[in-house]
Amino acid sequence: MKLIPYHQVNLRGGYLFEKQELNTKTTINAVYDRFYETGRITAFKFGFPEKDPVQPHYFWDSDVAKWMEGAAYILRRESHPDLEAKVDEIVEDIARNQCEDGYFNIFFTVVQPENRWANRDWHELYCAGHLMEAAVAYAEATGKTKFLSCMEKYADYIARVFMEEHSAAFSTPGHEEIELALVKMYRYTGKKQYLDLAAYFINTRGTEADSNRVAYNQSHQPVREQDSAVGHAVRAVYLYTGMAYLAKETEDESLVAACKKLWKDIAGQKMYITGGLGSTYIGEAFTTPFDLPPDQAYTETCAGIALCFFANGMLALENRAEYADVIERALYNGVTSGVSVGGDQFFYENPLEINLSERFTSVWGARRFPAHRRVACFGCSCCPPNMNRLLASLGNYVYGVDGDTLYVNQFASSDVTADGITASVETDYPRNGRVTVTAAGAARIAIRIPAWCDSYTVDHSYTLQDGYAMVENDGTPVTVTFDLTPRRVWADTRVLRAAGQAAVMRGPVVYCAEGLDNGEGELHNYILSRSFNAVEEGSDTYGLPTLSVSCVKRVAEEGSLYSNTPPKTEDAVLKLIPYNAFANRDETDMRVWFLAE
Amino acid sequence: MKLIPYHQVNLRGGYLFEKQELNTKTTINAVYDRFYETGRITAFKFGFPEKDPVQPHYFWDSDVAKWMEGAAYILRRESHPDLEAKVDEIVEDIARNQCEDGYFNIFFTVVQPENRWANRDWHELYCAGHLMEAAVAYAEATGKTKFLSCMEKYADYIARVFMEEHSAAFSTPGHEEIELALVKMYRYTGKKQYLDLAAYFINTRGTEADSNRVAYNQSHQPVREQDSAVGHAVRAVYLYTGMAYLAKETEDESLVAACKKLWKDIAGQKMYITGGLGSTYIGEAFTTPFDLPPDQAYTETCAGIALCFFANGMLALENRAEYADVIERALYNGVTSGVSVGGDQFFYENPLEINLSERFTSVWGARRFPAHRRVACFGCSCCPPNMNRLLASLGNYVYGVDGDTLYVNQFASSDVTADGITASVETDYPRNGRVTVTAAGAARIAIRIPAWCDSYTVDHSYTLQDGYAMVENDGTPVTVTFDLTPRRVWADTRVLRAAGQAAVMRGPVVYCAEGLDNGEGELHNYILSRSFNAVEEGSDTYGLPTLSVSCVKRVAEEGSLYSNTPPKTEDAVLKLIPYNAFANRDETDMRVWFLAE
Repeated sequence: MKLIPYHQVNLRGGYLFEKQELNTKTTINAVYDRFYETGRITAFKFGFPEKDPVQPHYFWDSDVAKWMEGAAYILRRESHPDLEAKVDEIVEDIARNQCEDGYFNIFFTVVQPENRWANRDWHELYCAGHLMEAAVAYAEATGKTKFLSCMEKYADYIARVFMEEHSAAFSTPGHEEIELALVKMYRYTGKKQYLDLAAYFINTRGTEADSNRVAYNQSHQPVREQDSAVGHAVRAVYLYTGMAYLAKETEDESLVAACKKLWKDIAGQKMYITGGLGSTYIGEAFTTPFDLPPDQAYTETCAGIALCFFANGMLALENRAEYADVIERALYNGVTSGVSVGGDQFFYENPLEINLSERFTSVWGARRFPAHRRVACFGCSCCPPNMNRLLASLGNYVYGVDGDTLYVNQFASSDVTADGITASVETDYPRNGRVTVTAAGAARIAIRIPAWCDSYTVDHSYTLQDGYAMVENDGTPVTVTFDLTPRRVWADTRVLRAAGQAAVMRGPVVYCAEGLDNGEGELHNYILSRSFNAVEEGSDTYGLPTLSVSCVKRVAEEGSLYSNTPPKTEDAVLKLIPYNAFANRDETDMRVWFLAE
Repeated sequence: MKLIPYHQVNLRGGYLFEKQELNTKTTINAVYDRFYETGRITAFKFGFPEKDPVQPHYFWDSDVAKWMEGAAYILRRESHPDLEAKVDEIVEDIARNQCEDGYFNIFFTVVQPENRWANRDWHELYCAGHLMEAAVAYAEATGKTKFLSCMEKYADYIARVFMEEHSAAFSTPGHEEIELALVKMYRYTGKKQYLDLAAYFINTRGTEADSNRVAYNQSHQPVREQDSAVGHAVRAVYLYTGMAYLAKETEDESLVAACKKLWKDIAGQKMYITGGLGSTYIGEAFTTPFDLPPDQAYTETCAGIALCFFANGMLALENRAEYADVIERALYNGVTSGVSVGGDQFFYENPLEINLSERFTSVWGARRFPAHRRVACFGCSCCPPNMNRLLASLGNYVYGVDGDTLYVNQFASSDVTADGITASVETDYPRNGRVTVTAAGAARIAIRIPAWCDSYTVDHSYTLQDGYAMVENDGTPVTVTFDLTPRRVWADTRVLRAAGQAAVMRGPVVYCAEGLDNGEGELHNYILSRSFNAVEEGSDTYGLPTLSVSCVKRVAEEGSLYSNTPPKTEDAVLKLIPYNAFANRDETDMRVWFLAE
């Protein structure tokens, strides 16, 4: 399908809209302010190293670029002169400080100019890619082309260095990102050299022509031979997204096939129930199939966001609801957990379990303990501005068109006009399960039926096709109603760390328990019973209902540490909140997977 | 009670006797050979650093000393001229190379003489303690006093340095051990200065007079204020043993009280079901109460052995079977797991769970993975010779006498003559549960009723007192029969990592499953059912029966990673072997805690 871009989609109410609004009102400014305070913004003035108190890091360009991209998406929707002025000032800095040959990188111009293109692991092409994405977004949003011109010049220079001169110390990016960015450059400018450069980087990767091939950055094999998601999760999924984008443009079936294999590996055996990716902090990486430890989950916010990109890229290749299902899983859970309810505190890692009792530190070091407090800014602060750009462009995930069929991929009150189709969706999903679609100009409406949904009604006759309810459009509103009754969810039995346990979901939303509501050091003692019963309560705090679940609870007794009799249990109520809202209060235990009868 | 020492107890059959015999026939020689090959033995010739290919390590003295102590216990029971000659040669080396002032330490005489007593963490007093224990054992075993004389001289010198001159860079041992050794020196020689030095080290520890006080080596507080087992587990429990020994000699109630608190902390909330101690490799240490992760268990063999020492020390203070229960738990499980069935391969760590699927290594490092292969010798090879001395002195744990009461603490076919009492035990425990005690010269026989045993018979009338069945002795054999039917065992609900799970025990023996018998990557899918049924099978391989347990097993199905329906199950049989025999075949999964209905 052709995905309808965010600027043709007007979100106007509901849960995702509120997240977008919070980004516009709070998060975009909070990220800018922290970046300003930490010197990231003024770094673009190239005052380093003499004038500024801190040294720029070699990935600072990318942090700010993602913020600029997010700002651009906001500016495409509505006027914010202050915001635009901030972007413009950075654009002026870039234009003024770009090297004569087109190169732009703060650190490798000001601090270590002798090390330009010297080390594959130093993120220059990654920074370049983010600047290019931002430049495209800003041109599209404002019609101003200065930023894009700079980045075209930069891209032309990169093409010369890597494709003609081969003068860099490496052949392909150490941190992938620029591949997908170059496809965006091509799509916006129509200039084929950017697609060619994207293809060059992707096709060279992991071949004999590539240097220093390691699985950590997915250069261990030619990409078409890769069938297992390995290494640094964000790098991996940015690469796969670039591959999917390139495959869409080139209709390269061998690349499509590789994308499908990698997708299957991720969605089938390496994805947390929250849509989080990356089972270990060691290299922020994928590990082995079905290795999904909840407390040791790394599940970087950026990896969840990258998964949305990859999934949308796959959806553009193949009209299968499974891709949109994964986007939904990530959006409502492991991605939005990355930002606080207030919009100005962030998680880089998004663990699925916190046990305060297991925190241990000695003179010999500390046990790896999950992230359990949100912070305003990180040393490596890639995630907050990634949240900016994702939330500001949520419209990208809602609609697609294929011929005369309108696809509704995500459910949000919105209007869309694209390719002769005018449509609207009315819904308060996922607060309730009713979604009404009205369309003119489309012969068919394809409404995604999420795989999690065992029970739904469609008020028109329909056929099911690859996860979509296909309705012949007669112009009348089509209403689909999903049963959102809270339910227990089990992982594949090969997921060792979820054995004997179940999670609770309501529609697409994963729930968690916190110690503050249920007792510290107690969450592992609640047992979800077979006669599962959850009462929905107010949604004021988190924008989604909280749940009170009837359980039994194992009760501590004084006595010996080991006993021949099972622990006593008592009836109890487990209070659950949406997982994406965990750690918005004090430091506390948290748990997603519960013992289940 | 007064514990009857090993040399007054003649073990002559059964499981523990076989372990002792394996030590005599194989393990004692295997350890010597490895120590010889690695240069540890010839290091005593002080040829370093010029003549030998490797440098001695500053704790090598202790490795060999523990082997010598083990050899001494063997020589006390039976003649082994070759073994005795080996010990004698080392003794000659020690006598020849001991410094004029009495100091003896290979490393700090040959390699870094300038650093004598310079650093609390360099194990000099620990090595000295082990040499003293060995010297006492060797004098007692052979009547030869050269070694003991050397160590008396050394102890006198240490007393001068630490109690009079205060000329060392620290005040008390960084690795405790010498405290308990000095009490042994006192007990054997009757020279009160050794008890005084033990008291000095114990009473100075953690006071203002102590230097560099840290919890890691239990010097954070005066010992009488300590009520939580913290820091390096072996150091901790050697200290507590020294405290218990000192308290026995001095009848110091405040010290007894401290020992009891520390005991309660360990046995009540910091001990694995196997008797293993130390929940983390980070500092080989105790962590927080009820923190007993099976896969991350460190549970050093030496810590389990130290627990036997401490427990016996407590038993000498108080006639309570709970102490002997813990000795039994350690002896049959987490201690004997430290040596292979063949007697020549060792574990330093004794994990309770191995999941091969979780092994992960990248360019950024490896995930902490449990020890899963036994080896012949370690760089830090403290555990194998500790096993030598423990197994050769198992008789220490069997009997006690208090007035005219004979206490039977552990069950092994044996004869004892002590304090006017002549007694014998006939049993094949723990292969079967029948224990027959015959005694002359004792008014009462006190037979331990293990706390794990819910069902037993005594063929005489008896009263229960602190875990012992007290029988008035009429000279006829007293038979106690323990029901050894395999059973499920649960941990206190505060043990997070055993939630929803149970272990299987038969009598005192903890069982485990290995992937080789039950499928790799499958052990977490077996569910112990309420109608627990275990069939006992042959005991040829491991000296104890294996078990076949009727279970249900969760079955992997192709499909989505997360599902609204619980996994299918099928009937299955789980084959269990004694935990202490794990990892005697190929690399494989292993598990102690199983899902339980």
